[in-house]
Amino acid sequence: MPAFTSLAEFAALLRNAPAADAAAHQAASDRNGQLTKPPGALGRLEDLALWVASWQGNGRPAISAPQVLIFAGNHGVCAQGVSAFPAEVTVQMVANFQHGGAAINQLSKAFGATMAVHALELDRPTGDFTETAAMTEAETVAALQTGWNAVDPKADLLVVGEMGIGNTTVAAALAAALLGGTGAEWVGRGTGVDNAGLARKAKVVDAGLARHGSRDPMQVLANLGGREIAAMAGAMARARVARIPLILDGFIACSAGLVLHAVTPAALDHAVAGHLSAEGAHGRLLAALGKEPLLSLGLRLGEGSGAALAIGVVKAAVACHSGMATFAEAGVSEG
Amino acid sequence: MPAFTSLAEFAALLRNAPAADAAAHQAASDRNGQLTKPPGALGRLEDLALWVASWQGNGRPAISAPQVLIFAGNHGVCAQGVSAFPAEVTVQMVANFQHGGAAINQLSKAFGATMAVHALELDRPTGDFTETAAMTEAETVAALQTGWNAVDPKADLLVVGEMGIGNTTVAAALAAALLGGTGAEWVGRGTGVDNAGLARKAKVVDAGLARHGSRDPMQVLANLGGREIAAMAGAMARARVARIPLILDGFIACSAGLVLHAVTPAALDHAVAGHLSAEGAHGRLLAALGKEPLLSLGLRLGEGSGAALAIGVVKAAVACHSGMATFAEAGVSEG
Repeated sequence: MPAFTSLAEFAALLRNAPAADAAAHQAASDRNGQLTKPPGALGRLEDLALWVASWQGNGRPAISAPQVLIFAGNHGVCAQGVSAFPAEVTVQMVANFQHGGAAINQLSKAFGATMAVHALELDRPTGDFTETAAMTEAETVAALQTGWNAVDPKADLLVVGEMGIGNTTVAAALAAALLGGTGAEWVGRGTGVDNAGLARKAKVVDAGLARHGSRDPMQVLANLGGREIAAMAGAMARARVARIPLILDGFIACSAGLVLHAVTPAALDHAVAGHLSAEGAHGRLLAALGKEPLLSLGLRLGEGSGAALAIGVVKAAVACHSGMATFAEAGVSEG
Repeated sequence: MPAFTSLAEFAALLRNAPAADAAAHQAASDRNGQLTKPPGALGRLEDLALWVASWQGNGRPAISAPQVLIFAGNHGVCAQGVSAFPAEVTVQMVANFQHGGAAINQLSKAFGATMAVHALELDRPTGDFTETAAMTEAETVAALQTGWNAVDPKADLLVVGEMGIGNTTVAAALAAALLGGTGAEWVGRGTGVDNAGLARKAKVVDAGLARHGSRDPMQVLANLGGREIAAMAGAMARARVARIPLILDGFIACSAGLVLHAVTPAALDHAVAGHLSAEGAHGRLLAALGKEPLLSLGLRLGEGSGAALAIGVVKAAVACHSGMATFAEAGVSEG
């Protein structure tokens, strides 16, 4: 039996998700205070270790099974010339993921994560949202379920990435619908459109906003979203319910997270922002989500690449927390 | 026979160090342009891969032998109450490094680096620079040689860290002497001094600047530096001569780098800044060195910890460069 069969049931699951484990957080914090370093000297690494502890429900957390999930979808709005790459690149890149040739394959391997790609009906693009809803409710639920079911319940850290030519336009439409503002305020250069392409993207987003009046988050996802973005939202929600810590990737991943956040802000309590991407509006989107990025290295690739890079930082934080000696163990004077 | 026997010979070695390999840089850049991603979409990871290529002299670089070196020293200025921790913590922490209990042990292990600690005459602190020179020329040369000889010529990436109660005061004195400004402009809270401690640090630095008039970089190192800082400078110089790429750590490591930079700015061409630390003046010091930090996570521990964290980023950059498929190999359309 599926965990949910409607958008309303999905939203209800999200609203009822359990909180982090306060006792595990306290135990991890107590240990942190005894480690051989001046108080606070590991900066955000200390916060990260406590965050992992609270979501894993373990005062001595470990990361031994990080999972990277990539979802791919195609978009009706591509017909409007919103990308520097042709739509067939989506399916070509899925093959590249499967053969191990993409950046995300190397990053997942570098940080010991399993990686799997899920292609969502690439031969059936979503509706062009300037003319019709991107997805029906049934299609949206199916995509959410794909994401939900892709999460390994035994994963102890999750990264969710995407591939979908045209999907920065879709993400901009979601952000504008849920946070306000015009297309021009949310679109960016994506894979590298020129000024004319940027203007086309803004116009396409404005047309979508004008056609679809609902501002209910799940309905916004159906009207303006895409299958891979719904699947990302489904995976992020599953991680929330299963208390698996989540690293958010760039603009598109955060637009999926924004849908959940608009249902209930606690929906992203299990998430940290892996990085600030070079896509123009990502910083504003992170600010709306209340997340401070861990990295800022000018990435704008998608695929979960920025978040996967941050796996290394989170693993390092947990390694320090679990492996360092205490003042007492090491016989070091405490200042 | 030692590589150098005087400060002048050391400086000459540095001035005559070979440049990076332009052909390897070009070969790596050509490959980068063919990888399955939009141009520039991996941001600074792309620059990092090309940087490693140019210093390793290999258009298809690899990182299989990163080395972390920690140098420890004690400081005469500790008598003036410049640290929140007693001076005996230096030797206690060296034991902690040797037993694997410090943060740098966990970080080195997490990123596959070898780690070794070199303690420099901890029972014989340097002279208090408010009263006398910190080190004689012979002592300075000996410390430089310790660092120089500690570098594994087969290492393919180097991190240099330190431990030395009181050494943020020493680093501030070096920065002020070589870049100008008063003690108050360069001191910070180090391991966590209060406002009175901060004022003492500024006063101690000003007294050192007043007593020692020379602004010759190597003489500044002898007068105001410390053994672990000279050893760091020696290791960084050896890496430069051997064309081993170097990741700079925080304020103290950068003060060692600054001495080399003051001898010749090309002395740090092989270096990237691993992170921006929470020590107040580190950002100004990095700006003077012309380095943009890779990470900014509020660390202020020393031990090479911020640079070691950045090993993960550099390894990831090289993994993408070496492991990704080209457009032709993957059959992906090039936009």
